[in-house]
Formats: sequence, C-alpha cells, structure tokens
Amino acid sequence: MTTVTPLNPPRRTLLGPGPSDVPASVSRAMSAPTLGHLDPAFLAIMDEIRAMLRAVLLTDNEWTMPMSGTGSAGMETCMVNLIEPGDDVLIGSHGVFGGRMAEVARRCGANVVVAEGPWGRALDPELLRAAAGGKSFKLVAIVHAETSTGVLQDLAPFRAIADECDALLLADMVTSVAGHRVALDEWGVDAMYSGTQKCLSCPPGLAPVSFSPRAVEVFTKRKTPVQSWYLDLNLLGGYWGEQRAYHHTAPINMLYGLHEALRLVLEEGLEARWARHARHAAMLVEGLAELDLEPIVPADERLTPLTAVRIPDGIDDAAVRRHLLQHFDVEIGGGLGPMKGQAWRIGLMGEGSSERNVALCLAGLKSALAEQRGA
Amino acid sequence: MTTVTPLNPPRRTLLGPGPSDVPASVSRAMSAPTLGHLDPAFLAIMDEIRAMLRAVLLTDNEWTMPMSGTGSAGMETCMVNLIEPGDDVLIGSHGVFGGRMAEVARRCGANVVVAEGPWGRALDPELLRAAAGGKSFKLVAIVHAETSTGVLQDLAPFRAIADECDALLLADMVTSVAGHRVALDEWGVDAMYSGTQKCLSCPPGLAPVSFSPRAVEVFTKRKTPVQSWYLDLNLLGGYWGEQRAYHHTAPINMLYGLHEALRLVLEEGLEARWARHARHAAMLVEGLAELDLEPIVPADERLTPLTAVRIPDGIDDAAVRRHLLQHFDVEIGGGLGPMKGQAWRIGLMGEGSSERNVALCLAGLKSALAEQRGA
Repeated sequence: MTTVTPLNPPRRTLLGPGPSDVPASVSRAMSAPTLGHLDPAFLAIMDEIRAMLRAVLLTDNEWTMPMSGTGSAGMETCMVNLIEPGDDVLIGSHGVFGGRMAEVARRCGANVVVAEGPWGRALDPELLRAAAGGKSFKLVAIVHAETSTGVLQDLAPFRAIADECDALLLADMVTSVAGHRVALDEWGVDAMYSGTQKCLSCPPGLAPVSFSPRAVEVFTKRKTPVQSWYLDLNLLGGYWGEQRAYHHTAPINMLYGLHEALRLVLEEGLEARWARHARHAAMLVEGLAELDLEPIVPADERLTPLTAVRIPDGIDDAAVRRHLLQHFDVEIGGGLGPMKGQAWRIGLMGEGSSERNVALCLAGLKSALAEQRGA
Repeated sequence: MTTVTPLNPPRRTLLGPGPSDVPASVSRAMSAPTLGHLDPAFLAIMDEIRAMLRAVLLTDNEWTMPMSGTGSAGMETCMVNLIEPGDDVLIGSHGVFGGRMAEVARRCGANVVVAEGPWGRALDPELLRAAAGGKSFKLVAIVHAETSTGVLQDLAPFRAIADECDALLLADMVTSVAGHRVALDEWGVDAMYSGTQKCLSCPPGLAPVSFSPRAVEVFTKRKTPVQSWYLDLNLLGGYWGEQRAYHHTAPINMLYGLHEALRLVLEEGLEARWARHARHAAMLVEGLAELDLEPIVPADERLTPLTAVRIPDGIDDAAVRRHLLQHFDVEIGGGLGPMKGQAWRIGLMGEGSSERNVALCLAGLKSALAEQRGA
C-alpha cells in the first residue's frame, strides 16, 4: 500500500453533543507509561477512580466503575445484566436514546412497553403511568439528559412510578454527569450509565456505570447467564473487586485519562461546576436571541451542557456547520432522527463550557448566517 | 472525599502477555487534539486505519476495522454476529481462550461441541475431526495464538475441517497479529479478532476484526437481530462504511494510537517484524537454558511473541515476579487456569521485542532465582 504519513489532526473547538474538548492534563495523563492491568500501581489507580466516581455521582454504591466501551456499551451493560428473557420493561422515550434503550432491551428478550413523548420536551410522567396500566415491571428506564434533544428530565416522578410498578429505576445520564446535579442515592436511581466524552471532558472510550444494592441483588441472583460475556458484571466484579481476577485487559491509558478528568471535576467542586455550566448556557441563549435564533426546549426543561437551536427557515443546515468548521475550527452538532435539518445542537460541556467558547460560537454563527442571508 | 493527587505511574518494562510497551510516537498520537467522530479529518483517519489493517492482515476483506472494546469484545463481536440461536458450532480448545470462545458461543444460544486438547501443545486436528463426527456446522473456531500457553497453531488443517463441515473458520489472533505471519486470504480465515496491546504495541482498548465476504453474507442475511446492539456489525457498517451514519461515539484518541502503531508496523515491514520477533524469542530461550529454565511448548509449536516457561520445583512464582517488578521494573506474567503457579509467561511483543529486553529479563530472573535458591 501507499505510505501513510503520521496523523496530525487539526485542533478544533468541540461544541457539539460530544466529544468535548479535553484539558491538557488529561491528554498528558493518557500518554503516561502503560502499566499491566494487574500491576499493584494500576490497581491503586482503579480504586481511586471508583472512589472519585462515587463522589461525582453522589452515591455510596459499591458497584460503581467504568466499563471498557463507550456510552452505548454502558447502556447495554445495564440492560444485559438486569434483564432476563421474558422480563417486563417499561421505557420512557422522547428522543434517540430512549428509543435505543427500548431496542437494546428487546434484544435482551424483554417484553418492552414504551411510552412515547414528543421530542424536545420533557416526558410527561402520566404518559408512563398510563402505559404501565397498574402492572408490575422489572425495570423502568428513562433518559435523564436526552443528548438528541437537549432535554433534562426530573427523575422524582419516575422514581414514584417505579415504586408503583415494583421496578428498578434505570437512568441514562450520559450528558448530565459532571454538568448537571446528579444525586443517585438521594434520587433512588438503581442503575445508571454515562460516557466520558461529555461533561467529564475525557476522550470517548469508557462508560461509567453504577448500581444500587437492590440492582446488584438482581444481577447476582440471575437464573440465566448474562448474554454478553464482555459486559457480565458478575465476572467483572472479580476484577474490580478484592479478588483482582483477570477478566479482560482493561484500557489502561483511557483509565489514566478518566482518573485525571475526575480529579479536575472534584478540584473545581461539583457545585461550582454545575453553576459554570448553567452560567454559560444562559449566556449562549442570550447571544442566540440577538441572532434571531431560539432554543427548541422550554427554559425549565433545558439541559445546560447542551442547547438545541431551531434552524430558521431557508437556512442550509450543513452549509452553516461547514462554515463554522472551515472558518472557525468550531464543531457544532446537527439534529438526529426527526430533528435532522431542523436543529443544531450546541454543547458547552466540561472544559468546553467557557465564556470564550460562547463568544466563539456566536461569532461563527453570525458569520455563517450572514453568508447565507447575504447569498 | 480526601484529595487525590495526579497519577504518576512508574515506567515498567512490560514483558508479560500484554499489554506491551508503547512507542513514544504512539503515546504522542494518543494525546493529539480530539476530533468529533463525524469530522471529515477524522473520517480520513478511519479510512487509513482500515487500509493499514488490511495490509497487516494480508487481506482484501472490505469488512476490516477496529471494534470499540478490548480483545474480548472482538471475540464477542465475531460470535454474536455469526451465530444465531440453535446454530451448531465446533470449537477447538487447548487453553483459556478456546474455553472462552465456547462460553461466549453458548451465550449466543449455539449448540457447542468442544474438542479439548492438552494445554501447552498445539491441538491435534484429528481431535476436532473426530468431534465433528461428519456433521455440518455453522462455524469452526480455533485459537491461532493461545495467549494462555504460548502455543502457535497451524491453521491449514482446520480450514480443511471447516470445509468438510461446510463451516466458516474463525480464528483468535490476539497474540499473533504483527508478531507472527498472519495471512487471512491465503489461509481462508473467514473471521478473526485481535487486540491492540500485544504485537501492535498500542495500549489496550481496541479490537481489530476482519470478515471474509462469505462471513459478511452470513451476518447481513441473519433472521434474528444480533443480541448485542453495541457490537452489531450491520449497524456499525453504517458508520465505518460510506454512509457515515452515527452509531456510537468512536474512541477517537485510541484510534489515533492505533493509526500510529499500524504505521510503525508497515514502516518496519511485516517480514522484518516477524523475523525480529523470532530472533529475540530464540535469544530468550537460549538465555533461559543457562538459568536451567525451559520452555513448556515444543519448539515447532511455540509462539515467538510469548514464551511460557516452566517454574522449577521449589521456586515461589509470586516472589519471583515481585522481585522482577520491584528491583527491575519488569513485568512478566503468571500462568492461568491449570498453569497457575506452574508457568511464567514472558512476552517480547512489538516494541518490546528487543535484545535489550531479553538481557533485562534474563538478568532479572537470574537475580530473583539467586535470591530464592540462596534462601
């Protein structure tokens, strides 16, 4: 084959729905010397990662750790470990990731009932309650932070519904962890998954998960084997727990990155970090108004790390995003599913949530819209 | 929680069964700026990775790409995509990874027939032929490079058996790729998986896989959905193929590392790299003899990247490995399964296959044995 030259990726400012920009110290951590996955020095790093994850998630859950895959592997981990064939599962869906949860649950052999709500709005809990129809379920699943629409969901009513259904509560927290307040124990979340490439500002590649003692009881007492060997928590517990038994070779250098990313989150402080995300989201929305652009999601249902913006009539979605990338080295996201061509998704996540980036994004949009409107 | 200090992992020399030492330029590549997973600059990098993987595997297989997980996720990818519930699968097992393949295939609902051979020896093809009993199978699976024992398996007789059974041939090549000759098309391998942390000398976190057109036909014409959404090749093809549709967020920086690692392999040249692994393995075995240590595997069945060494009577396995780690910063591996306490596994893989490392390992072993024998 022809000779390939060493890669030299351009430095973008990542203001899409993730990945987000990575702090220099996280990049440096990832390039530290690789250790063996059973090296005592690495086992100590694993313990610190778990302790820091618990602190960030406000939980005492013993079973809190990163899975060796991206966020979707975290979703699959929750489903394959908690569901056995024939189980009844109730899912609230108001975006891509609710729909994906339903699909993954079906592939686990679950009988899935889906309550569909409109995209771009929080899901009305009464829709889910009506879909439940007074029956029992093994699992109720809802997206806390819908990355496809920028909607934040209050989990309290869903915990109540899960109680009515005698069910575990599972939440997708991919875009909320370390950007919004997340309090697993206080909220009674039994299982959750996230990703590293959003408000944690670490490259993609790991999926933090956490399980309440009640959820742990469910997967440790299964009657059937977990369909995924790779994601089987009963096997993985042997490695992340005291036994330190080999299961698979952990992604060592990715875990270095997560260690540093979590350290930065705790150094900043959770309250300060959530406030920073809120402050810059508000600043962005204010600036968008000056460009006659409006957010899709009502203010009290809106994520702060991710803002969905309505694309005005007559504006070419792809051309605007290309302009931002080519002239400003700024990436923003397009819409997914029914929002394709209808919405931009602007992420101000983790390291990326800054006044500088708000200004840069607005300047880029202004220039792109001027080009379009002038044309 | 108490304050966590930034990590500062010691620099080991990794001479176990993987991970192996990572070249400086691979570490640098991994710390390059993160791009979005749909950025045109990243899509170009993906294409180069696929082209280089094909060159390293000596294949024209269109479906050649890294999965977003470690080697075991590669194994699971092959199984969940090729197997449908009720399929008959024939597996040769002579170590941990043959046994793992059988377990993963069972979790896919396959009827699994296992031909067990003794650990530390190549598997006698007649054992597999006898187990087949003249019946048809969907899949015949065998480990090309058994990481648990250091055995290399000639695949030609297994291709013949697969033909007799009207089956696809799947091979575990985790420890052979880029260390031993691997020639997928010439050998008629229909499906394979590997890991990045062995002879490719990239940190763990990705699993290269490749599928022949015949294997692709099997998973594109399935009657049932793939049980893993995360590893579903029919969905992933939309991202790695021309459509560039979002499936999951690829582990961008890990892929940077793989890009550079593959580039280094091709820069060195495949023939030269295989010869280097053979040369240093021979040098190691010669030096071991001077310490009265002998390899477990007969010379003509032995992997060159990984040598299993019999632990002499009266020698404390763990104490020797601890001595190497503490006094020489050298990691070697212990035995797995029935070989626990019976064998050390010494890896000279990728970057780690050097005269310097042979000398260092032998010096460390000599010192550790002297301590034990003097005690």
